[in-house]
Amino acid sequence: MTAQNSVDTAQTVTVDQAVTGYAPTEPYLLTPGPITTTLTTKQAMLHDWGSWDGDFNAITAEVRQRLLALANAEQSHVCVPVQGSGSFAVEATLGTIVPRDGKVLVLMNGAYGQRMSKTLSYMGRDHVVIDKGDYAPPTPEEVAEVLASDPAITDVALVYCETSSGILNPVAEIATVVEQAGRRLIIDAMSAFGALPVDARELKFAALISAANKCIEGVPGFGYAIIDRDLLERSEGNAHSLCLDLYDQWVYMERTGQWRFTPPTHVVAAFLQALHEHEAEGGTAGRHARYSRNRDRMVAGMRELGFRTLLDDQWLSPIITTFFSPEHPAFEFRDFYNRLKARGFIIYPGKLTEAESFRIGCIGQLYDAQIDQLLVVVAEVLQEMGVALDA
Amino acid sequence: MTAQNSVDTAQTVTVDQAVTGYAPTEPYLLTPGPITTTLTTKQAMLHDWGSWDGDFNAITAEVRQRLLALANAEQSHVCVPVQGSGSFAVEATLGTIVPRDGKVLVLMNGAYGQRMSKTLSYMGRDHVVIDKGDYAPPTPEEVAEVLASDPAITDVALVYCETSSGILNPVAEIATVVEQAGRRLIIDAMSAFGALPVDARELKFAALISAANKCIEGVPGFGYAIIDRDLLERSEGNAHSLCLDLYDQWVYMERTGQWRFTPPTHVVAAFLQALHEHEAEGGTAGRHARYSRNRDRMVAGMRELGFRTLLDDQWLSPIITTFFSPEHPAFEFRDFYNRLKARGFIIYPGKLTEAESFRIGCIGQLYDAQIDQLLVVVAEVLQEMGVALDA
Repeated sequence: MTAQNSVDTAQTVTVDQAVTGYAPTEPYLLTPGPITTTLTTKQAMLHDWGSWDGDFNAITAEVRQRLLALANAEQSHVCVPVQGSGSFAVEATLGTIVPRDGKVLVLMNGAYGQRMSKTLSYMGRDHVVIDKGDYAPPTPEEVAEVLASDPAITDVALVYCETSSGILNPVAEIATVVEQAGRRLIIDAMSAFGALPVDARELKFAALISAANKCIEGVPGFGYAIIDRDLLERSEGNAHSLCLDLYDQWVYMERTGQWRFTPPTHVVAAFLQALHEHEAEGGTAGRHARYSRNRDRMVAGMRELGFRTLLDDQWLSPIITTFFSPEHPAFEFRDFYNRLKARGFIIYPGKLTEAESFRIGCIGQLYDAQIDQLLVVVAEVLQEMGVALDA
Repeated sequence: MTAQNSVDTAQTVTVDQAVTGYAPTEPYLLTPGPITTTLTTKQAMLHDWGSWDGDFNAITAEVRQRLLALANAEQSHVCVPVQGSGSFAVEATLGTIVPRDGKVLVLMNGAYGQRMSKTLSYMGRDHVVIDKGDYAPPTPEEVAEVLASDPAITDVALVYCETSSGILNPVAEIATVVEQAGRRLIIDAMSAFGALPVDARELKFAALISAANKCIEGVPGFGYAIIDRDLLERSEGNAHSLCLDLYDQWVYMERTGQWRFTPPTHVVAAFLQALHEHEAEGGTAGRHARYSRNRDRMVAGMRELGFRTLLDDQWLSPIITTFFSPEHPAFEFRDFYNRLKARGFIIYPGKLTEAESFRIGCIGQLYDAQIDQLLVVVAEVLQEMGVALDA
């Protein structure tokens, strides 16, 4: 599978070079995260924090408060961060709020829905799936039907933006049928929160999960869940793992202001800086506008060059877009990747099972200038590779 | 419990200040980690890495190879890093290598032994403990006796340096009896590896665990286990958690060069820089010498000021030392802490159940000058608080 291949080094940036400071020539990351962050966000890491100290506790408190506010969830939910990647936060949330005798309906249309199912299998929690394959969206009707036919289902889990294909799933519509059926909704909003609207007063969810290195534009090292307070209060004893027990993490954090186990202090400090910069850009609306503009400019330009998107326009997220690899004999993904990287852009391999593809992200520190430059560079590289496409 | 109280802010360092760059006046962290790191280690984080890119894979590969070499374990073991804090690596190791029908003998003399027991309870893995209370060392004789009397025990878990008290446990002696009894040894070497000798050719262990922000002097965000290769090859299907399955992490990393889920890229890059600096200081021997010198200088000075250590000299680690709080009516830990912090030193609360205490660490970027300055400052603060001690 293309997605699991390592990509060769075209332009080696060593740590020793990095140590000399910011490298203005480092490639832009056109990926679903880690993404290109601001220098000021990274500079917030030039400080060592005591993980039990009041100064660091104040950072944690502000991060949690700001995340709740972003979701309009201060009245109903709490924010619990957890060390590790976003998948750690997803596993922790599933393990903490799904009762041991619960049953989850997982809506799958890509790698991250599959990962939730695998996570539940490890934990030994009962679940069923609606598997739509590589990219088709789950429909509210089929969800309603499964919920009506299986009263044992307690929770529904879905992915807001499934970055394997780049699809934006119909979260609001599905939330409505889940609420009507009296079940709980768990949203993996990894590559969505901070750029796509989430309002807990309108969108009914039990838990919503994201991570530091996505649309808030922090660096990777922790994830977080925004969980219904009443539900979390009833979740003691559910977890399968001490480290991933968000009930225990929450109770300890409320009592002490501290993380239970050592937090990634530098990453948390950088994230607070990123949250300030997110606000300065106009919050979720501002970021949504910039990312959408990036996508529109990039997709239009790529189509002009002769590339085709996997999805119709209505399903394209402002996060990442999948393009079919051209069927031209001279097109080889690794070669394309390495040539783009040498010119300053790191793109992403595809993750489809049935067709060769690649992905280009729109999130992170990317503006018109970078998108325009990317399009120039893609054209150059195609010519260099001898790939002529019908535009 | 003192250890679980947040400590008030005496000197507030905001993120915005941090953003202006390195703050030479930031307090030194006299803790068991996160510790004070070099500026060059932190500067390695001023770069955004693509987590699937060849450049980052090369960093991961070098980190893993260097850690194995530090333990003289290239022939026998493999190194598997995992996202999260050190406790995540401990839980992941226990979950991955202890079979579901295994039974663990946990040697406890402080918080980290207790945490291993709690972790096993969450996982539902059978275990028994030898609990020595707050700080007494487990003896090889009692371990041999328990192993002889209970043939169901498959694994023995102990903590190399138990930072709750600062004790250095007799790892080599216990390893010998565990080997003689034909059981596996799991060493939590969190605050030891990189400063205390570990030689896999002599010390027989199934797994040894540490984290980035300890004696190698990186920043927090991941841990790692050095695991017997033959054992890990037989460990498929043991894990209770997808994210914490080190077998799966290892297989994926061997095949692709990548972490399964998003790694804390900046933290990993900083750790490689820290490993280079560790080598430049003379490796484990060089660091052991500096930390021991720090401890000797600090303990001698504190005793001159009238403080008493919890442990006799033979048990004092070169990592962190526990002092009894003076029984003087004017001595109050929070006040002492805040006054020291205002003068540039963050110390650590105690973690004993039976006596009031505090801890001072020796690890991180601390040299004679910092230790001498600390002693001057402690004397000043005692005077300011009106605490007169018999020296």
